[in-house]
Amino acid sequence: MPGPVRLGDVVAALGGELCGGPADAAERPITRLAPIESADDASLSFLSNPRLVAQLAGSAAACVIVAPALRDQAVARGASIVTPDPYLYFARLTQWWAARARAVPVAGVHPSAVVEPGARIAASASVGPFSFIGAGATVAAGAVIGPHGHVGAGATVGEATRLAARVTLGEACVIGARGILHPGAVIGADGFGFAPSQGTWVKIEQLGAVRIGDDVEIGANTCIDRGALGDTVIEDGVKLDNLIQVGHNVRIGAHSAMAGCVGIAGSARIGRHCTAGGAAMILGHLELADHVHISAATVVTRSILKPGQYSGFFPVDDNATWEKNAATLRQLHSLRDRLRALEKKLP
Amino acid sequence: MPGPVRLGDVVAALGGELCGGPADAAERPITRLAPIESADDASLSFLSNPRLVAQLAGSAAACVIVAPALRDQAVARGASIVTPDPYLYFARLTQWWAARARAVPVAGVHPSAVVEPGARIAASASVGPFSFIGAGATVAAGAVIGPHGHVGAGATVGEATRLAARVTLGEACVIGARGILHPGAVIGADGFGFAPSQGTWVKIEQLGAVRIGDDVEIGANTCIDRGALGDTVIEDGVKLDNLIQVGHNVRIGAHSAMAGCVGIAGSARIGRHCTAGGAAMILGHLELADHVHISAATVVTRSILKPGQYSGFFPVDDNATWEKNAATLRQLHSLRDRLRALEKKLP
Amino acid sequence: MPGPVRLGDVVAALGGELCGGPADAAERPITRLAPIESADDASLSFLSNPRLVAQLAGSAAACVIVAPALRDQAVARGASIVTPDPYLYFARLTQWWAARARAVPVAGVHPSAVVEPGARIAASASVGPFSFIGAGATVAAGAVIGPHGHVGAGATVGEATRLAARVTLGEACVIGARGILHPGAVIGADGFGFAPSQGTWVKIEQLGAVRIGDDVEIGANTCIDRGALGDTVIEDGVKLDNLIQVGHNVRIGAHSAMAGCVGIAGSARIGRHCTAGGAAMILGHLELADHVHISAATVVTRSILKPGQYSGFFPVDDNATWEKNAATLRQLHSLRDRLRALEKKLP
Repeated sequence: MPGPVRLGDVVAALGGELCGGPADAAERPITRLAPIESADDASLSFLSNPRLVAQLAGSAAACVIVAPALRDQAVARGASIVTPDPYLYFARLTQWWAARARAVPVAGVHPSAVVEPGARIAASASVGPFSFIGAGATVAAGAVIGPHGHVGAGATVGEATRLAARVTLGEACVIGARGILHPGAVIGADGFGFAPSQGTWVKIEQLGAVRIGDDVEIGANTCIDRGALGDTVIEDGVKLDNLIQVGHNVRIGAHSAMAGCVGIAGSARIGRHCTAGGAAMILGHLELADHVHISAATVVTRSILKPGQYSGFFPVDDNATWEKNAATLRQLHSLRDRLRALEKKLP
Repeated sequence: MPGPVRLGDVVAALGGELCGGPADAAERPITRLAPIESADDASLSFLSNPRLVAQLAGSAAACVIVAPALRDQAVARGASIVTPDPYLYFARLTQWWAARARAVPVAGVHPSAVVEPGARIAASASVGPFSFIGAGATVAAGAVIGPHGHVGAGATVGEATRLAARVTLGEACVIGARGILHPGAVIGADGFGFAPSQGTWVKIEQLGAVRIGDDVEIGANTCIDRGALGDTVIEDGVKLDNLIQVGHNVRIGAHSAMAGCVGIAGSARIGRHCTAGGAAMILGHLELADHVHISAATVVTRSILKPGQYSGFFPVDDNATWEKNAATLRQLHSLRDRLRALEKKLP
Repeated sequence: MPGPVRLGDVVAALGGELCGGPADAAERPITRLAPIESADDASLSFLSNPRLVAQLAGSAAACVIVAPALRDQAVARGASIVTPDPYLYFARLTQWWAARARAVPVAGVHPSAVVEPGARIAASASVGPFSFIGAGATVAAGAVIGPHGHVGAGATVGEATRLAARVTLGEACVIGARGILHPGAVIGADGFGFAPSQGTWVKIEQLGAVRIGDDVEIGANTCIDRGALGDTVIEDGVKLDNLIQVGHNVRIGAHSAMAGCVGIAGSARIGRHCTAGGAAMILGHLELADHVHISAATVVTRSILKPGQYSGFFPVDDNATWEKNAATLRQLHSLRDRLRALEKKLP
């Protein structure tokens, strides 16, 4: 890890107004970024959730990033950086911090890598140990292929896109610029398509590919299948967490985000700026409009054309109570009929 | 991609009756297979879903594959291939198309591969870069081990079976002929077995293996654990999608198919010709008869011995409505009691 | 496989009292461990579930491991090993059996491995083919890194810990002693953190790591994300099955165990000795006390501070019945209101 930074360096790089604290606050050395509740006097912290304001006064942080509305409270405590959106400032701070701390991948192709004929690798790209770059593949400027990477024949990795260790980008698949693919992600496995024939399944070869836009992040062990005839499409700015399954022919609109363990079945069309909580399951051949938000563990069985939050999962309870309610649930329809019968008797 | 094909070539290879369209329809060049709604005049398309018949008349496709019942309507539009089962014909067409378009893996062992003593690799098999073939393993004729493949000691890969990039077939595990394993699949990790002892867990070593039949396809990042004492068994013709978990000692009957994110807990016995929708969860030590179909996201907690469709998940709703219903659900049993009380007052 | 063992060897190694059977029972050759219902006369079996006692008399096993309470019944059948906890004895027996049967990894670094400068690898450790050991990483005595292993820069693998094939241990992550990581596990991918900004997502770089204690087992393709600022922590003795997602900043207390497909969202704190059934989903920023047990497929949306079993999933039913009940469920709140109205009419 590199040495400490001065608060003045942070503000010089990222903006915001440094105020409060000792006269030499700008010289204050910062050795780590920390949550407000565990920050010490060498920590830079932030406060973005208004419900946590009570934690401000007691924080030992060297400096706290706050919104203008909290300026007075923050300055009363000590050194503060005032900025309109502290959480966004914090995000940019982590990027600046990581850029200082992390080793830059060395440009060039590791001698252990296998590069097939016709592959084009930019001079500024980095191809790690044991990587395989297929025939006719393209790795653009500044791209990084981590150890054990796989870029299939004819596939394209855009500028400054980083494949972490052990990512598979299948034949003819494309990812745009500034993307991040985490370990174990599989882009371009075959979609799940079979024609039934006399009790057996006859494979439908999956002839499409996967096209991923710019600024997309894809989590560890997440799978995005290639299209059957056309392509599976992930638009710009989409963020997918770990262990997500995206079926063939799916389209995910720009800037949508999905939490871990989500499943999206084949040919579903997800709008822009949608979100899905962990383990939500979206069935195939349906459509979600822009700005549709699906709660965790919810099964979407029909198209949703109106923006909003949608949910559907059984609430947790102690096991004995759940058992009683679940058993009764299996008679719910007849309970309704009995209620109706009573209502008729008592009009 | 290879050049276009003639419609006459398609029929010569796959059968069916070419009828309708211009006199030289058989000479018509086809450059792609396409869905009926997006087909252009160089596309070969198909119509198998009777609900989509309305799309037939307006399709720009060079030719549409249809069933005999639609012959007149199809011929009125233009060139058509008439065949008893258009979807099955289409599946075979994709296979024929892919065989034309795709590079054939080169037979032989890539110089970067590591092959341990006693491994037997057929001369016609292909072993890709950075693959590891363990001691005493067998790779049969025409089999393909993709880049970063792992065939453990004593494992067997059957004839013409293809391991895509980065597949793990563990020690002593067996897969039959004509199988396909997609990237990241893990066959033969340890089953999850521990004996509790004074608040800690003592590992039960998993001494069995995984035995997979012929014509099995296994999706990306899907895991099939080895048996504890006996073997985990996947019978012929089973199709598993991505990110599926199959626990130790499970048996899946022939020609069953499971969609993505399904979980099957240890020692469950699944019959033949069963299906499970995405994220269905089948608990351990239970049995599903042949021809049992489980809907997506359904939790199977008991054996099901009668063929049919089974379901169980909370229906999705707008969040406010769901919240009200979910909260009430936690009182359902007492609602039933109150209903009973009313019924007694009003006999 | 090695040759048979004598029953006397088993008892000499693992204890227990050998009784019943022929005079030369200790000389009896055992060639396999088997479940009681499929054991043959060369099998050693065990009986720990009292509900299965009926299987004892008819078992063909050479010897059955039983608790003292079953001594008389067992001896009446034949050779028996009597021990206070047969299941624990069986677990230890599998370990002893596996140690006899399995090849010991060869100490040393495979010539194909890439080891970056400053990595420290103990002389007794084994580093497999195509493994990558990053700068400054540590691989302790007796540790095993399987083929295609990835130990990131500055990461630490504790004594006798085994990484199976194709495990990723990210930069600066730590695992203690005697751990087992199964193929495809990804330790230390970025947590899922973004600040929203004008309809796009700005990445929060994940600056923490993952710290894993001693005696931890992690399943195939399971993912544990690195912390955002602090570390994600897995305490001693935790057992995680396959395809589990653990979000950033999570803490899992010692000796907790999770079945396959479980998801734990960011910053959740799980106590000690907890369990979760398959596909349970624990939302973020909440707390589970020690000894909390979550049933399969249950969504935990609030902290649970009292030990016990908790559940919440829709019970499975035949599809037609489920459809009726699920449809009615969407009106449950209004049914309650109607019931109240009736109650008012009939006080």
